[in-house]
Amino acid sequence: MPQAFAGVLVPVLTPFTPAGDPDAGRFVSFCRWLLDEGADGLAIFGTTSEANSMSAGERMALLDRLIAAGIPASRLMPGTGACSITEAAMLIKHAVGHGCGGVLMLPPFYYKGMTDQGVFDFVSTVIDKVASPALRMYLYHIPPQTMIPFGVELVGRLIKAYPQTVVGLKDSSGDWSNTKALCEAYAKDGFAIFPGSEVFLLDGLRAGGVGCITASGNVNVPGIRKVYENWKTPQADQLQADITLVRKTIQAYPMVPALKRIVAHFHGDPDWATVRPPMERLSDAQSKALLADLAKIGYSLGERRREAAE
Amino acid sequence: MPQAFAGVLVPVLTPFTPAGDPDAGRFVSFCRWLLDEGADGLAIFGTTSEANSMSAGERMALLDRLIAAGIPASRLMPGTGACSITEAAMLIKHAVGHGCGGVLMLPPFYYKGMTDQGVFDFVSTVIDKVASPALRMYLYHIPPQTMIPFGVELVGRLIKAYPQTVVGLKDSSGDWSNTKALCEAYAKDGFAIFPGSEVFLLDGLRAGGVGCITASGNVNVPGIRKVYENWKTPQADQLQADITLVRKTIQAYPMVPALKRIVAHFHGDPDWATVRPPMERLSDAQSKALLADLAKIGYSLGERRREAAE
Repeated sequence: MPQAFAGVLVPVLTPFTPAGDPDAGRFVSFCRWLLDEGADGLAIFGTTSEANSMSAGERMALLDRLIAAGIPASRLMPGTGACSITEAAMLIKHAVGHGCGGVLMLPPFYYKGMTDQGVFDFVSTVIDKVASPALRMYLYHIPPQTMIPFGVELVGRLIKAYPQTVVGLKDSSGDWSNTKALCEAYAKDGFAIFPGSEVFLLDGLRAGGVGCITASGNVNVPGIRKVYENWKTPQADQLQADITLVRKTIQAYPMVPALKRIVAHFHGDPDWATVRPPMERLSDAQSKALLADLAKIGYSLGERRREAAE
Repeated sequence: MPQAFAGVLVPVLTPFTPAGDPDAGRFVSFCRWLLDEGADGLAIFGTTSEANSMSAGERMALLDRLIAAGIPASRLMPGTGACSITEAAMLIKHAVGHGCGGVLMLPPFYYKGMTDQGVFDFVSTVIDKVASPALRMYLYHIPPQTMIPFGVELVGRLIKAYPQTVVGLKDSSGDWSNTKALCEAYAKDGFAIFPGSEVFLLDGLRAGGVGCITASGNVNVPGIRKVYENWKTPQADQLQADITLVRKTIQAYPMVPALKRIVAHFHGDPDWATVRPPMERLSDAQSKALLADLAKIGYSLGERRREAAE
């Protein structure tokens, strides 16, 4: 299978202005910084990106700005999920037109209790509408938000129908047995499986996965990359334990507001804490507690930023 | 509170062409027929309308066509729900610009586990962005699809903040105790409460509700109107039992495909059975069984159509 991605991918946080609009300038800078930190790819417009709190037009405008600023399209895997075939096809055509390395595809998520056949027809109609041999689609399995799964069998049907197009999957089920089942079933054919949290990075690599696409990449690319680069060494388990500790510390708080608060603090840019409703920013008390928890485990994005600058 | 709607409102099915595009011509005819049947209002672009399987552009184009065809805007309550503030505000501005009697507002439905404060901020930001004294918003409580509730307390907060704007609610929870609690809390102030199924129409009217907004209105406006018109008479309970039987017969099947199959059959237009993925049309066996079940209880849209034509 043709593959553009492996390693540590970051579902990039989206900065908003204090008035609540996407802030393209800060978005470009942040994407550039993440690549400098060692991110292998940028899964912009994911769940962590508050992509579904933006209109299709806002998402396309941000992608246009990244490309214009010289971020390599081959490193981008924009989320192109939508509840309608029409909007999903439009977003994918836009991404493929820019030469993006791939797209991350949610199932339609409004109606619940849909059948595998209905979800298959949705994806298949979208792929047929886009009709591009350049399209590389990564399925986005995140049942805690969508309630509509890309189950192991459905994934197999999609691979079989579109072997040059449906080339990978992000598993944000949080259920290792599901990731393992996917790896056992499809990794040997070159299907790229990314756990949706670095907590499962080492287990994933050992099972045939190719990396991870993880929210905490926004604040810990170097730590996560250490696991990826050293997973066959005797240090691997300790390195994994280190990044798992950081992750668990952060996810004791609402994840997206917490990550934005960390970025605001260590990048010295308070506006970064802004989220779009229905999300809420951390309270002052939560912010304080989070930063104290991180200090306690020796985490400091600030030090790493200074080291990198030296 | 300023009110534009009461009685029997229909969340209108959306016809698609065999190629899968919204069919504006058949949509206009069907809306006109529903008004002729006695519908008090048309809640186009609801859950039954597969609205969330259409892009914002497709929905606005259909509304434009209805208005151009002379369907009175005052009778229209388009669904304007979206996951983003941006898209919701755009859809509402478009509807208000056409002079629609009101809009039906879903909560943002991608992210799960959001707080009441987050949902309040979402709705409040949208209302402030639209900034029109002409806006009449009906909240759309449908937790089986959204998982994000407009709970009784949150509804009260929204009414209090926007008494001229947040003027009603459709309750599709399917939970009578919730509808009852809403009626007890807010009906006396003129807040318009519509159960989302005619099964609760009579109970709702007795508790202070003002009608219903119901999927099966697509195929049974006259029956449902009989309950609405006679709810204070001794016949009310029998009339309610009649429409409940029709409803329960239909909802033994997947609701939207079943309604489309009924319309296809009785309007003599097989293309009406077309749904958009992720929905699937009924199988031939299901279609046959559904029509047989309806015949068994003496339901015939066809006879009514002929009577109306005579």
